[in-house]
Amino acid sequence: MSSKHTFLHPDRLFPVDTRTRSISRGLYERIKDAPILSPHGHTDPRWFADNEPFADPASLFVVPDHYIFRMLYSQGVALEELGIPRSNGGPVETDPRAIWRVFASHWHLFRGTPTRLWLDHAFSTLFDVNETLSTESADRIYDQIAERLALPAYRPRALFERFGIEVIATTESALDLLDSHRKIRESGWQGRVITTYRPDAVVDPEFEGFRDHLKQFGAVTGTDTGNWRGYLEAHRKRRAFFKTYGATATDHGHPTARTANLPAIEAEALYLRLSTEPACAEDAELFRAQMLTEMAKMSLEDGLVMQIHPGSSRNHNRLLFERFGRDKGADIPTRTDYVSALKPMLDLLGNEPNLTIILFTLDETSYARELAPLAGHYPCLRLGPAWWFHDSYEGMVRFREMTTETAGFYNTVGFNDDTRAFCSIPARHDVARRVDCAYLAHLVATHRLREDEADELAQLLAYGLAKSAYRL
Amino acid sequence: MSSKHTFLHPDRLFPVDTRTRSISRGLYERIKDAPILSPHGHTDPRWFADNEPFADPASLFVVPDHYIFRMLYSQGVALEELGIPRSNGGPVETDPRAIWRVFASHWHLFRGTPTRLWLDHAFSTLFDVNETLSTESADRIYDQIAERLALPAYRPRALFERFGIEVIATTESALDLLDSHRKIRESGWQGRVITTYRPDAVVDPEFEGFRDHLKQFGAVTGTDTGNWRGYLEAHRKRRAFFKTYGATATDHGHPTARTANLPAIEAEALYLRLSTEPACAEDAELFRAQMLTEMAKMSLEDGLVMQIHPGSSRNHNRLLFERFGRDKGADIPTRTDYVSALKPMLDLLGNEPNLTIILFTLDETSYARELAPLAGHYPCLRLGPAWWFHDSYEGMVRFREMTTETAGFYNTVGFNDDTRAFCSIPARHDVARRVDCAYLAHLVATHRLREDEADELAQLLAYGLAKSAYRL
Amino acid sequence: MSSKHTFLHPDRLFPVDTRTRSISRGLYERIKDAPILSPHGHTDPRWFADNEPFADPASLFVVPDHYIFRMLYSQGVALEELGIPRSNGGPVETDPRAIWRVFASHWHLFRGTPTRLWLDHAFSTLFDVNETLSTESADRIYDQIAERLALPAYRPRALFERFGIEVIATTESALDLLDSHRKIRESGWQGRVITTYRPDAVVDPEFEGFRDHLKQFGAVTGTDTGNWRGYLEAHRKRRAFFKTYGATATDHGHPTARTANLPAIEAEALYLRLSTEPACAEDAELFRAQMLTEMAKMSLEDGLVMQIHPGSSRNHNRLLFERFGRDKGADIPTRTDYVSALKPMLDLLGNEPNLTIILFTLDETSYARELAPLAGHYPCLRLGPAWWFHDSYEGMVRFREMTTETAGFYNTVGFNDDTRAFCSIPARHDVARRVDCAYLAHLVATHRLREDEADELAQLLAYGLAKSAYRL
Repeated sequence: MSSKHTFLHPDRLFPVDTRTRSISRGLYERIKDAPILSPHGHTDPRWFADNEPFADPASLFVVPDHYIFRMLYSQGVALEELGIPRSNGGPVETDPRAIWRVFASHWHLFRGTPTRLWLDHAFSTLFDVNETLSTESADRIYDQIAERLALPAYRPRALFERFGIEVIATTESALDLLDSHRKIRESGWQGRVITTYRPDAVVDPEFEGFRDHLKQFGAVTGTDTGNWRGYLEAHRKRRAFFKTYGATATDHGHPTARTANLPAIEAEALYLRLSTEPACAEDAELFRAQMLTEMAKMSLEDGLVMQIHPGSSRNHNRLLFERFGRDKGADIPTRTDYVSALKPMLDLLGNEPNLTIILFTLDETSYARELAPLAGHYPCLRLGPAWWFHDSYEGMVRFREMTTETAGFYNTVGFNDDTRAFCSIPARHDVARRVDCAYLAHLVATHRLREDEADELAQLLAYGLAKSAYRL
Repeated sequence: MSSKHTFLHPDRLFPVDTRTRSISRGLYERIKDAPILSPHGHTDPRWFADNEPFADPASLFVVPDHYIFRMLYSQGVALEELGIPRSNGGPVETDPRAIWRVFASHWHLFRGTPTRLWLDHAFSTLFDVNETLSTESADRIYDQIAERLALPAYRPRALFERFGIEVIATTESALDLLDSHRKIRESGWQGRVITTYRPDAVVDPEFEGFRDHLKQFGAVTGTDTGNWRGYLEAHRKRRAFFKTYGATATDHGHPTARTANLPAIEAEALYLRLSTEPACAEDAELFRAQMLTEMAKMSLEDGLVMQIHPGSSRNHNRLLFERFGRDKGADIPTRTDYVSALKPMLDLLGNEPNLTIILFTLDETSYARELAPLAGHYPCLRLGPAWWFHDSYEGMVRFREMTTETAGFYNTVGFNDDTRAFCSIPARHDVARRVDCAYLAHLVATHRLREDEADELAQLLAYGLAKSAYRL
Repeated sequence: MSSKHTFLHPDRLFPVDTRTRSISRGLYERIKDAPILSPHGHTDPRWFADNEPFADPASLFVVPDHYIFRMLYSQGVALEELGIPRSNGGPVETDPRAIWRVFASHWHLFRGTPTRLWLDHAFSTLFDVNETLSTESADRIYDQIAERLALPAYRPRALFERFGIEVIATTESALDLLDSHRKIRESGWQGRVITTYRPDAVVDPEFEGFRDHLKQFGAVTGTDTGNWRGYLEAHRKRRAFFKTYGATATDHGHPTARTANLPAIEAEALYLRLSTEPACAEDAELFRAQMLTEMAKMSLEDGLVMQIHPGSSRNHNRLLFERFGRDKGADIPTRTDYVSALKPMLDLLGNEPNLTIILFTLDETSYARELAPLAGHYPCLRLGPAWWFHDSYEGMVRFREMTTETAGFYNTVGFNDDTRAFCSIPARHDVARRVDCAYLAHLVATHRLREDEADELAQLLAYGLAKSAYRL
């Protein structure tokens, strides 16, 4: 698709030397148009349910993208100037063109970052913008994008099809009624948009409103969440309900990877405390730990693949959190232990071949030291791809270099785009495919792998591994 | 040796660009046939004592190799299918051909791993197998290997000589009577097989049977191990005995690198507690810490080189450990601190130029941050090579890139194969030599080193540094 | 400058492949002669005040350089042989030629290290020494350097000008009277030598002589440092005084990055305890933590840029410290946390766009995980360059590869030479410029950056970013 866009070099991200570049090109040529599997992400299901046009370039590209506004903020741009809504409804910039101009005038900040690659790709391949964003070009590019957004071919479902998406998973809270998913299904549209069960709001005692959520959880499921059994039953029911909307996986965004396997009576007492009183830090951590094990037990029962995403210190910037709320680019990775943290759960379930637990990390030091050795041994474990800040050229290279020799390729699960930025999806998968082909080409060029094996692996990394690991 | 084997590319693992590849080739050509020094490993001395033929391809290549069965296990293959003996003697597969077929049908799992490189090398150079293992080729390759194993040229001593081994160290428990070593010596065979003093069983209070071991330790040495002085005396005697069988080194596999330097009266009291009662975790850790210092003191007396191998969480998989015992691929690396951990010992002995302590790690984050700065300063410290999960192309590259600039080459000790897999020894040393030549070639090609210096260093890394560091 | 020195390859440190090397060369050609900004370092201001000739090759190159004598010490050379003064004034080698010979005979130890690059550069470009140091060449090179040192062109001010230094910052204790800086100013010489406010001696309760320092601090500033208010006032006065000698920055060498924001009454009580009694470890750490926040508050008032250099375990070698004192190559990096450590300070001041805090690390694991995400979000934070043991080819490559994708280039601050070794300054900046050009060239060659953008960035990394970040 990109070859006709001269603004994007057809060999971008490939190794420089002629031989390895040529092998990379060959591998890539055969997988670049493979359907996109997006088994983990945060697109809004209402887009596909309602199929309304996107409003304007700023609200499509700038306002929802924390990669963009964190960088601008780091260089002194106020979030108000970018139209980020304030928690108290206070005034912020509302003119999309004004927001776009601020963004454009700071475009140089993204040199060397993945955001630059993603947006160049989206601008060029979707909107035929083949020049660099700048103060000078800002309005021209704005108009070009705005004009296209009004066309039927730029509505969400049309883009979904144009992107070659075979299946996309959204992520919904355990309390979500999945109305958009119902609406998609009832519309008769054939695009496969599935949900993912994300129970943090009813699993994390430190989540704002936790005890209210427990009550809603009871109401939504018709169970008595005033006791531990009823609470677990509510999860079972919700998981089954999410499965009816296509869910094949659950997702757990904990601060750490800690797991526990408490005697039932202790778990019950812990739940009673937490469901009736404000949580102390250790109780909260222990409950989250216990719930990872409970969720794993349910996954063994109902077949949902479990994803554990630990290690982010959320809302690190106190003032920003008070002013603008969650997810504003102020989540900072922390050191994460897996070896002792996962042991209680693995002691119970680690040898189950029918259970799949996908581990992610924001702490690259765990790749070679902990995650690859764990995934290269336990039948239930698989490694999720380079994630979040590491969803980038160098981040992906480090992932392969630090996991492959111990865990191999077959204990990994392909790529996740993990994005809220719909138009970046083809770009992100393209980057991952290019980096994987370059990595495989390097193995071939250093005679560690035959070319036919690399070909087979390129297919698996682009498509097959995600398909099987996520049971799609 | 490999040039006649077209299945193995003669330039494997060398850089891709013509200039650096050519320099690598030149360096390698001059050291590829250097004698093998294997100063740290786990081959079975009975092989050399008895010189019996190896039984069959499966028991030679599959059953003893935890790199292999951990990978197969991670993808759902039961260890019973691979003939791994159960602790209770329960039934497992006994037909070597059946085991081999399971292994062969999963060969693709090793793509991108060092196991693939090692076995391709052994198959090709030793058994003239020049095709890829697969379900289809499994029986043919099995027969080809089995046929050779029956020949005199494939007996352990013949292979030892064919491999060009100048000296190999095995590792024996402090309680071992070294009968195989005696038998080797008495046989008149000239192969230099030396032992290494590994006292974990009488140093680690959490080792199964520790207090019984202390009694045996007393019996074997004719000392009263009921008290601290006698216990230390027993070590001295055993170390001297091991030296008579060629030992030049000791080896210490502790969970952490912690050291201590307790007042004698406290050490004595600690020993009395541990030798008579079950150990609490802190006592056990403190005793191991104290014993590293005691062993270092004895090394200063008797000249044995000390090796510290910390940072493995042993037997992480509880069920597997209960079913199959130790060393089944379920040891997982953990974060390891050296700076504060080693300080008590270094405060006492760190400035002794006649003491050699070789540090290993499973935590690569310590290379540039802790180990290279420590070894680049303390006269007694040297860095062991990339170890275990990091004994691989990328692992070795990271080791050189993260240690050389601070510790130089001369504070490192060459390569250790550290293996139980006899036939992989030439392959492992070949990989290390290739990676080192590639690294040196890169320094030459970027004009950081002259080619004559690289030549000298290639010799040292392949042979000279191990010879001097291990006092061989 | 180097092109006429055939001993130094003009393409050193550039990538090997023709295309990337050629781009690197082009970028470098346009910035290699940019003026040197040295905003953080440890040259002695007396050199520039007195402008006396340097005494001899050994006292210029060997005796003050802990990179050199730590490596020699690690291989068994006594510091006495190198003329390192003993704390008790005991005898050490005093013949510079004898010291030089010991150094020369161990030159091979530096193969693969930055010291080798720096000294080859200084020998060749300053002294026309175009051969390798060795036992054989030692005297010849000694004489060649000694002869030049007697010439006017080799006096400190002449070298300063020859090096193209636009501004150099030295680092002085809060108690320093800045006499040398006054003398420089009064001399009428135009070289811009500025000071930096380094208050560790009056901020760290574990610094030898802390409570005496507090008294001197009061005397020097004419304030009553017997109470918390007076103590803070003394800092304000001294900072203002340092600004009159050009200071644009402060520097803080703490063991950790911990910060605190205590209620005033608690801070006051803590100060009273520490100023009158020996410190317990936790009080000392808490006070240092509080003082980072106090210094940041003052920086917001007076505009001094704040530099935090945490994570060194100082004087790790007890015996060496007792015998030779501080800064003898026995400072060892430790694991360093930033995310929770900086939070108290960032909660208070993190969103101030007029505050600049530059973070350094000796723990590379924090680059991608903590520092880049923090600097890519908080307006006050910037990343200092690869530091100390990481001020090297591979260290700088890792810095760029692990920070750029998340923090971009504009949240970094160019290069610091951080050196006591005056003649190494041009070499160190040259290495940094080459590595940056090589990195940028790689982005261009893989089509992640246009060449005109790389050109602009090369200028910024060599000059512009340091100029603006340090407010020079």
